[in-house]
Amino acid sequence: MNEQFVLRQRPVGLPSRDHLELVRSARPELTVQDELLLRTRYLSLDPYMYGRMAATQAYAAPVELGEVIVGEAVSEVLESSSGLYSPGDLVTSRAGWQRYSVAPANTVNRVPDNGLSPTTALGVLGMPGFTAYAAMTAFGRPTAGETVAVAAATGPVGSMAGQLARLAGARVIGVAGGEQKRNLLLEWGFDVALDHRSPYFSARLQAAAPEGIDVYLESVGGAVWQAVLPLLNAHARVPVIGLVSNYNGTSEPAPAGLGERIMRTVLQKRLSLQGFVVGEFPPELWQRFHAELTGWVKDGSIRYQEHLLDDFTRAPEIFVDMLRGNNLGKTIVRV
Amino acid sequence: MNEQFVLRQRPVGLPSRDHLELVRSARPELTVQDELLLRTRYLSLDPYMYGRMAATQAYAAPVELGEVIVGEAVSEVLESSSGLYSPGDLVTSRAGWQRYSVAPANTVNRVPDNGLSPTTALGVLGMPGFTAYAAMTAFGRPTAGETVAVAAATGPVGSMAGQLARLAGARVIGVAGGEQKRNLLLEWGFDVALDHRSPYFSARLQAAAPEGIDVYLESVGGAVWQAVLPLLNAHARVPVIGLVSNYNGTSEPAPAGLGERIMRTVLQKRLSLQGFVVGEFPPELWQRFHAELTGWVKDGSIRYQEHLLDDFTRAPEIFVDMLRGNNLGKTIVRV
Repeated sequence: MNEQFVLRQRPVGLPSRDHLELVRSARPELTVQDELLLRTRYLSLDPYMYGRMAATQAYAAPVELGEVIVGEAVSEVLESSSGLYSPGDLVTSRAGWQRYSVAPANTVNRVPDNGLSPTTALGVLGMPGFTAYAAMTAFGRPTAGETVAVAAATGPVGSMAGQLARLAGARVIGVAGGEQKRNLLLEWGFDVALDHRSPYFSARLQAAAPEGIDVYLESVGGAVWQAVLPLLNAHARVPVIGLVSNYNGTSEPAPAGLGERIMRTVLQKRLSLQGFVVGEFPPELWQRFHAELTGWVKDGSIRYQEHLLDDFTRAPEIFVDMLRGNNLGKTIVRV
Repeated sequence: MNEQFVLRQRPVGLPSRDHLELVRSARPELTVQDELLLRTRYLSLDPYMYGRMAATQAYAAPVELGEVIVGEAVSEVLESSSGLYSPGDLVTSRAGWQRYSVAPANTVNRVPDNGLSPTTALGVLGMPGFTAYAAMTAFGRPTAGETVAVAAATGPVGSMAGQLARLAGARVIGVAGGEQKRNLLLEWGFDVALDHRSPYFSARLQAAAPEGIDVYLESVGGAVWQAVLPLLNAHARVPVIGLVSNYNGTSEPAPAGLGERIMRTVLQKRLSLQGFVVGEFPPELWQRFHAELTGWVKDGSIRYQEHLLDDFTRAPEIFVDMLRGNNLGKTIVRV
């Protein structure tokens, strides 16, 4: 039998079992040539999925009611009607929140045989790592001596962005929630690690950036953004790749005047704000990402943390925990 | 005798005679080699000056209390200790709000002998026109078939930006205050001209942009920006070159949540917001601007409007009128 999480109702605020329902159905079968029957081994849970559930994303079709929740996975090929893959092969695919799926062979990618855990293809060397790489190399472009601030810095995007900035010679301030995450950031070599839950966060950020902030990777919004904004230097770059605080139920209402403050800062500091969606980067950059980063991940120049959980039937609760920041590193469900 | 407007007090809100005081002093004299004694013929009044008075600009030193208000002017050389200029020559200089000034010869530029009024060196072919040219060619980059919206569209920046966009084949929506300005925009060939003072402005803007907006030149902020924001297309570009509504006393307080809406739109639409200051563009672009645009201005491909007023002693009132939008075109005081 297959087990799938389907969308029953669009969430407003955090999703629950009212919105995500576990349904059982027959295992799918191959019907045409060049298809693969896949068994999900590792399911990636990422903040962007919230936008697909809530239909708040302008850049991608939402999950429709009754449909399986979208998501990347590392899957094992069980059956193949394609010459490209054989049973036993591991591939990444957009399998979604389900145990079994069928995919055209040309929509999956072989998990590289690089000596690393296959789960890295969902995190540090997958879509989240690539998002950080692309945003920082194509737009953030930190240089030696600059100060870079990264939100959600232990997450798979933030950790890559921060470490790339360090490798570029920048001074890096990592922002995350709680002492355990702070310690992880310091262990990874972040110059400063700040807990955004501290009542002194804003003052500490200011103290940690005596020369201002040149690049800020925005993935959370809310209080972190409000604290960063006045510290941005002339010509600072702000790649915007997510706004988790908008939909994890933790953000306070923004103070009045924030919109005007943003625009005034854009003008006065000649900021660049640029929104990014990973799917729009050119494929060549993805190749370059792998060519450059695989070695660095293997030799420990780029560190990463994965948060593996075992119970697929608890995926909704694991997802909400991740949105709330109760994870440590890349959240992956072992199916 | 010289007459100068000096800063007595920093304005909060619109400036008045309490802030800008007319003082008389001896006419300055040449003291060293390579200097020019200049008589101001035309003084340019531009919104950015407010930031220098109020010390709200991060990118330029404010006018200090007791100092002459800064500003570009077309001046006549009265005396010269430089081989480069002779009495009678017309130059542009940063003379400020005064009748006479002394400037090193290498800080002025000869007014081009191009058959146009010398006042064009302060507007359509001066700093405002160049601001629009640089922001649109270096960043906005409208292409044929795209929709471009321009705020303060009869002003010297907006009019240049809108007409450049039309020449690039874009559909251009000009926004300005009042019927007279609307008519001017239509006469200039703007595809749509909207009065932002109309209670139906927001609905009319939406109706005028059925395919959304690809480029928005931001110079006013406030209600126009709030109406444009939801209409921006994927990958829209928003050069930010001014925010007049922030300091002309006309803007309503922004609604709560605007800051979050801006950031969400940046992410969802993958917007580029980019602040610009004219002084930071490379000098080569200034040369290219003149090479490309002078002919277009002369043959009427680029239209412009100047608002010339005569009484230098009324400069503060003329300046406030301009901030309020009571001018029609580039505001210049004939001294």
